[in-house]
Amino acid sequence: MKKAGLLMLSLMMSLMSLSAQLSLEDVISGGRNFYKYYPFAVNVNFRGDANQLVYQKNDSVFIQEVDKTNKSLLFDLKWLNEVLESNKYDALRRLPKIKWDDRKVFSFDTPKGYFKVNQPEGSIEMFVAKDENAQNADLNAGTKTVAYTKGNGLFIRTGNEAPIMVAGNEGDDIIFGHTVHRNEFGIDKGTFWSPEGKQLAFYREDNSMVTDYPLVNVDERVAKLENIKYPMAGMNSHQVKVGIYDLASQKTIYIQTGEPYDRYFTNVCWTPDGNSILIAELNREQNHMQLKKYNATSGELVATLFEEKDDKWTEPQHPALFIPGKKGDFIWQSQKDGFNHLYVYNKDGQLKKQLTAGKWDVTKVIGFDKAARYVFIESTKEEAIERHVYKVSLSSGKLTKITQEAGVHHTKISHDGRFAITSFSSLNVPSKTNLLYTNGRKIRTLDEVEDPYKGKDIAEVKMIKLKTKDQKFDLNARMVLPLNFDPTKKYPVIVYVYGGPHSQMVQNRWKGGARGWQLYMAQKGFIAFTLDNRGTDNRGKDFEQAIHRQLGQPEVEDQMQGIEYLKSLPYVDTDRIGVHGWSYGGFMTISLMTQHADVFKVGVAGGPVIDWKYYEIMYGERYMDTPQENPEGYEMANLKNQVKNLEGRLLVIHGAIDPVVVWQHSLSFVRECVKNRVQLDYFAYPRHEHNVRGKDRVHLMEKVSRYFEDFL
Amino acid sequence: MKKAGLLMLSLMMSLMSLSAQLSLEDVISGGRNFYKYYPFAVNVNFRGDANQLVYQKNDSVFIQEVDKTNKSLLFDLKWLNEVLESNKYDALRRLPKIKWDDRKVFSFDTPKGYFKVNQPEGSIEMFVAKDENAQNADLNAGTKTVAYTKGNGLFIRTGNEAPIMVAGNEGDDIIFGHTVHRNEFGIDKGTFWSPEGKQLAFYREDNSMVTDYPLVNVDERVAKLENIKYPMAGMNSHQVKVGIYDLASQKTIYIQTGEPYDRYFTNVCWTPDGNSILIAELNREQNHMQLKKYNATSGELVATLFEEKDDKWTEPQHPALFIPGKKGDFIWQSQKDGFNHLYVYNKDGQLKKQLTAGKWDVTKVIGFDKAARYVFIESTKEEAIERHVYKVSLSSGKLTKITQEAGVHHTKISHDGRFAITSFSSLNVPSKTNLLYTNGRKIRTLDEVEDPYKGKDIAEVKMIKLKTKDQKFDLNARMVLPLNFDPTKKYPVIVYVYGGPHSQMVQNRWKGGARGWQLYMAQKGFIAFTLDNRGTDNRGKDFEQAIHRQLGQPEVEDQMQGIEYLKSLPYVDTDRIGVHGWSYGGFMTISLMTQHADVFKVGVAGGPVIDWKYYEIMYGERYMDTPQENPEGYEMANLKNQVKNLEGRLLVIHGAIDPVVVWQHSLSFVRECVKNRVQLDYFAYPRHEHNVRGKDRVHLMEKVSRYFEDFL
Repeated sequence: MKKAGLLMLSLMMSLMSLSAQLSLEDVISGGRNFYKYYPFAVNVNFRGDANQLVYQKNDSVFIQEVDKTNKSLLFDLKWLNEVLESNKYDALRRLPKIKWDDRKVFSFDTPKGYFKVNQPEGSIEMFVAKDENAQNADLNAGTKTVAYTKGNGLFIRTGNEAPIMVAGNEGDDIIFGHTVHRNEFGIDKGTFWSPEGKQLAFYREDNSMVTDYPLVNVDERVAKLENIKYPMAGMNSHQVKVGIYDLASQKTIYIQTGEPYDRYFTNVCWTPDGNSILIAELNREQNHMQLKKYNATSGELVATLFEEKDDKWTEPQHPALFIPGKKGDFIWQSQKDGFNHLYVYNKDGQLKKQLTAGKWDVTKVIGFDKAARYVFIESTKEEAIERHVYKVSLSSGKLTKITQEAGVHHTKISHDGRFAITSFSSLNVPSKTNLLYTNGRKIRTLDEVEDPYKGKDIAEVKMIKLKTKDQKFDLNARMVLPLNFDPTKKYPVIVYVYGGPHSQMVQNRWKGGARGWQLYMAQKGFIAFTLDNRGTDNRGKDFEQAIHRQLGQPEVEDQMQGIEYLKSLPYVDTDRIGVHGWSYGGFMTISLMTQHADVFKVGVAGGPVIDWKYYEIMYGERYMDTPQENPEGYEMANLKNQVKNLEGRLLVIHGAIDPVVVWQHSLSFVRECVKNRVQLDYFAYPRHEHNVRGKDRVHLMEKVSRYFEDFL
Repeated sequence: MKKAGLLMLSLMMSLMSLSAQLSLEDVISGGRNFYKYYPFAVNVNFRGDANQLVYQKNDSVFIQEVDKTNKSLLFDLKWLNEVLESNKYDALRRLPKIKWDDRKVFSFDTPKGYFKVNQPEGSIEMFVAKDENAQNADLNAGTKTVAYTKGNGLFIRTGNEAPIMVAGNEGDDIIFGHTVHRNEFGIDKGTFWSPEGKQLAFYREDNSMVTDYPLVNVDERVAKLENIKYPMAGMNSHQVKVGIYDLASQKTIYIQTGEPYDRYFTNVCWTPDGNSILIAELNREQNHMQLKKYNATSGELVATLFEEKDDKWTEPQHPALFIPGKKGDFIWQSQKDGFNHLYVYNKDGQLKKQLTAGKWDVTKVIGFDKAARYVFIESTKEEAIERHVYKVSLSSGKLTKITQEAGVHHTKISHDGRFAITSFSSLNVPSKTNLLYTNGRKIRTLDEVEDPYKGKDIAEVKMIKLKTKDQKFDLNARMVLPLNFDPTKKYPVIVYVYGGPHSQMVQNRWKGGARGWQLYMAQKGFIAFTLDNRGTDNRGKDFEQAIHRQLGQPEVEDQMQGIEYLKSLPYVDTDRIGVHGWSYGGFMTISLMTQHADVFKVGVAGGPVIDWKYYEIMYGERYMDTPQENPEGYEMANLKNQVKNLEGRLLVIHGAIDPVVVWQHSLSFVRECVKNRVQLDYFAYPRHEHNVRGKDRVHLMEKVSRYFEDFL
């Protein structure tokens, strides 16, 4: 018995120690337990224009006064279903996402339509019915009209009326009402309601001049061709126009932007009077932006409000933001002084003032208070790796810092501008939500999320600051130490890299932004290291634009600063350094392995860009110009020219129907390796696109992990 | 000095031991030194109808009397070039392949045309000019006419006249004069000259009803679709007709074979009088063959000469062979009595006699002697793993064995039937060529090729005979022992498997048929083992047909007999058994790994059939019937249903434009593994077809070798 008891104890202990470790199912999005370990912030909002807080949790909505700590149930799913059913609508299985229009009315949508509920009255209306298979829905609640696309066509539907086709039927290559220019330049939709909802501006994209790229669907009985339109750098681009549909006359006019149509028509917005449309037009070279004002009735040019040039690139990402009640004055965001800042222009495009300035970026404009005395912004003013929220006086430009605790904040401002709800995380804070006055004075903590890893052995994460080789810029990095770290031992390192524009991997957020996979590999005894090199985001224009026409050069130089740092650490096994990245990070992985073959023993490159001339026009030409204009740059960055430098063990992985970094990239790299009798490993994820998503992502990361375990 | 001397000696010794090993460049076809190690037989022939021997070596041709041992120079390239140039033809850089028409005249062809040389006279004539880019050339020397294809069209050209289009211009899907039915049923060409060359029979293949299979060319600037027509099992097949073009009238008639046109029209041949065409017609089910005789002028059916049915399949592979001077009597080959034998029919299809019989196969008919008293055959009569040549009396059926030494013989018979030149190899004989009388008496050895591995350490190869589990059949196997084999040690094993129909990997030929790669792996300490399971060739019908409707079952059972044998050997490390195969062998590799996961630690499957319903109609339906007729068989053989059984380390490799086993096979297998979170390794060879050929094959075999070295 005693022996059996000991055995049982030892078995229990080994089970306990097992459960104290994270599995891939715990840390990989798509994994069975992923959400269990994700520190979701509490769902709390202001109740419309009221200074009351509403919490939505599971199937209940609670209310709380800003100056009280007690919550009370406002309503729940049962109540909502009674309201729905008594009005002959179908009951719901879950409480939908609620949006408060004002202190009484909230709205939500279901697959059937859009609903408004007057909560105190308990009345409900489905004010617009949904069309089956509608996509890209863009609701105008004022006119009770929704714009949406089906296939290539654009439709509207008002209330319960029959849908009307606004545009369509011009063939397979001409698409209406969708996002254009491959979602670059901040473009994420294709329809734009006029302020009163009487007109609908929309994009028309003509792809007929763009080459087909063949994707093959191997799930079909006989593998089936499924072409996409993919405009490659230096080749024909699609042509975009902006139409305006008038709901009353049911007529469409097109904005007379004129030739060439392969320019970029970005940041479409209406003037507050509904008479004009502003378009930030960018030449194909992306170094000359003109903000143009067009007559929304005739489509004629009214004026070029202003323009901006840059010897590298200019990249408008935010439409004009009109200041309420200010007769057409608007805020424009620009990096022209070296950082992203706010400028106030009048309706004729005359600069009234620069509203913010300094060696930091405005990262987001949250909005105005009701009286429009302030604009609320998120910025890097405190720290490039943090986000804090400021109240900016529109008259004086004076900044008031609202958020106080260190970290990355996501903040909502009350309608009157007096209160802020801020949710943030930082290195060791999973998620905390505070209620503040917008003068920065904290009222109370609304919620604090418990450490999701409680009871697990979690590796220590350290934030690191290094310098570029020329000492000009700081470089932010993050290191995850192995579990049960012993500084007298030697550990292998896996560098996780992205390194491309518009990214920032290292932030003072939960675990420093380390991916769960890095914590997982730390369990297995690897140091996980990540550094944001030049070219990445939120560090100002010089830092970002250093990569122009020479992708893979400054980025690698900066990553090697991280390697030098690692080599300086007594506990790093310098013979066992690996690197992993996806997409731009795949390009970086192979660039590092071929430029510094003596350093990297093992690499895993996913969906890598191999040859920038296979990449799309918008992104590719911004950073590299065209292959015709910059042949040396393209050759230097072409990883096929580097295969003979490959010495380490490299696994390349690609989604077989990747429509972003097309499969040709990695297949042509493999072909070049084979030609040169250079060995590498390869894996394809059939039916996966640019990222392996869903539960198959666990398979992917198991493969990646295993590769480092086998060979590093 | 002494120390330096020792160092030098040790360096020299290590270099010597290095050079005593074979490299992949030595053993892999496509490798730099491959041909250096290939034991080519001497190039010796009879001089047309003369009993003289002509040797062609480099740029010289030597002559030798059958009863003499001395050779003399007959002519060389210099002489031929003088003849060419004095007749205003271009000189050649190398001596072309010479064919002796009779004792005086030889012919050859160059890219310019077809030549005849009267050697004693020193005269030359280019009797047919070649058309640029001509393919599938089929020469009729008598009428000085060549038939050939260009694109989908069929052309003829007589002498130096302008080419004439015989057929073509019926669109992309209709192809003339090419081989049809995917080269099954012994079909390897698409044109058939009538005996006097006045008419040309040809195939017309209509692919319009066959599905496209999308292949993608990643070498293009933008990856380009290159469809092939690929008829999958159970789906629409192509439709074939046989046309006859009359050179005098320039008119074409079509043989009236009638519906359904997705039958197989095989073994087209002319009767000796030139009046009729014989076609061995096979139903789509491939179990009912009818030999039909058609009027070559009208295309009408004359008679069904005879028919053959089989409850599994019947597979005619040899056209009627008319016996010279015997008024239309012909030899027909059939497996109907269980083995492939010769039958004599008269012109009306009446069986006159069975010429050969016994539990062995006729593997080749070499031909008749001038007087047509004998037919010369190659067979397995001696041993299934050898090939010997026999003289068969057409009157009595009496067999006279000609070849004496054990091995696999390739034999030429003199015009008068008195002499034979036989080249053979056997386990330890690289290549030896003897001159014999056809009564079997040896005259002398003409040539013996030196061991190409002389000076290298070469592993020992052993031939092994096992039994099927039911003891009914012998199984032939071959084992390569590791270099410096020590029977007291334990060695890992790599099974190399093909296992599909029409193959025989184990023969009593040089090194037992072991591939150079097996010798290479033996150097690295692996035992290399190969066994020919049921379903493979030259063992009679029962042995071959055991696999019908259940591919992967008897084959695996037999391979496991080999494994049992290996496990019985004290020097086999039973925990380290790997398996590698390509195509059918890839199917076998994964079948073995999933059916016997406890046995196989590592596998490498190249171009594997995964799901037989993705395979083509001709081959697939012969062995499996259609998916509609044999759903259970298809499900049982579908390796996607077995992914959960995979435990060992599996690398799957595929040529990315494989037109035989289409890429869908392995990609869909990977997809199924991913879905089930089953890990496997994968590699694709872009721009390679069903096999990785040329110098890239060295890369392939390095990859395969490395996989076993890493993981077995």
